[in-house]
Amino acid sequence: MVATVRPARAENGRRDLMDIAIDCFARYGYQGTSIDRIAKAAGVTKGAIYHHFKDKEELLFDAVKTRVGQFERRVASDLTPVDDAAQALQEVTRVCLEHATRSNHRRFIVTLMVEALDTNARLSAEFRDMMIRFRAFLRSIIELGQKRGAFRGDVNAATAAGVYAAAVMGAEIQYYQDPETIDLEESLGMFVEQFLMWLRRPSPRAARRK
Amino acid sequence: MVATVRPARAENGRRDLMDIAIDCFARYGYQGTSIDRIAKAAGVTKGAIYHHFKDKEELLFDAVKTRVGQFERRVASDLTPVDDAAQALQEVTRVCLEHATRSNHRRFIVTLMVEALDTNARLSAEFRDMMIRFRAFLRSIIELGQKRGAFRGDVNAATAAGVYAAAVMGAEIQYYQDPETIDLEESLGMFVEQFLMWLRRPSPRAARRK
Repeated sequence: MVATVRPARAENGRRDLMDIAIDCFARYGYQGTSIDRIAKAAGVTKGAIYHHFKDKEELLFDAVKTRVGQFERRVASDLTPVDDAAQALQEVTRVCLEHATRSNHRRFIVTLMVEALDTNARLSAEFRDMMIRFRAFLRSIIELGQKRGAFRGDVNAATAAGVYAAAVMGAEIQYYQDPETIDLEESLGMFVEQFLMWLRRPSPRAARRK
Repeated sequence: MVATVRPARAENGRRDLMDIAIDCFARYGYQGTSIDRIAKAAGVTKGAIYHHFKDKEELLFDAVKTRVGQFERRVASDLTPVDDAAQALQEVTRVCLEHATRSNHRRFIVTLMVEALDTNARLSAEFRDMMIRFRAFLRSIIELGQKRGAFRGDVNAATAAGVYAAAVMGAEIQYYQDPETIDLEESLGMFVEQFLMWLRRPSPRAARRK
């Protein structure tokens, strides 16, 4: 057992530093967060940080991967196994709402994702893959609903997944910009209502067959 | 007439500089664009730029106001007078699609809007007002449709306007991030289809009355 203590402890130290770093990034932005600031917030030396991470970008990159992974595992575990596709789609917005309003980490991820578009190709590719996975997950739910006959079969599930992801992201950004005006829960609820009403409609072909 | 030539020319010079500046901002980002770079691109001295604008932030601020104003006037003129509310909502997405794909200016506005959230309170307030105006415009179309009986009357038009604005913005961001995967025209078309199907539905109260 003794042999495993050291790596486990090192892993914890790394994880703790990452949590503190992402708190700093979320609060002061990437530009406003120095390794020095993170070290002070963590109560460690700058050397201790450089022991775990090459530089600030590496730390940001790992922090983003970690947070995104946590969000994806959370969504997947809350929703597995998917039985009722419509209920699962409602559940995804519930998790998004919780993440958007509970801490500033989700805001950090979304704003950084847009900022990275034109400033950091490597980070932007990571976010692109995150969105591809999110849309693939939504698509699989929609296709399950189609297979089970709950959703109309004549719509492109991939495009529909993109519409869903777009509406959630856009609502979040409006909420971050104007929390006094935008009721995120009401907005997401209204969108899902529209989306499900449209998906549940019988396909024109099925209607014609009758 | 002579008296008006000089101010008109100065106004043109200012407008030309702004067009060139926003091209630079869109191409190299705010951080990557210096007054020097704008001056070189415009073929003028730095002094000529400082004659019109206090500093880079002032130039950015004016450029954003100008571009947003152009977009809003374009939407308003394409859509006035609004007669058919459903057709008007389809038309708004058509203008958004055109602006998102024709030049990189719309991308610049959207990415800068998100970036400004945590970095520039004054610019962020300007973007917030822009979104408030956009939602108010959409809301007025929805309310017109409700008044004329084309849309169900039991939905909150302000929230619905927010859902519409969110879906368009989110679709745009996904397209900027991943133009190979996202078909923006198809995405926007599918969203408007859902939105109108939902809005056109008779209200539960009206259905109950029958």
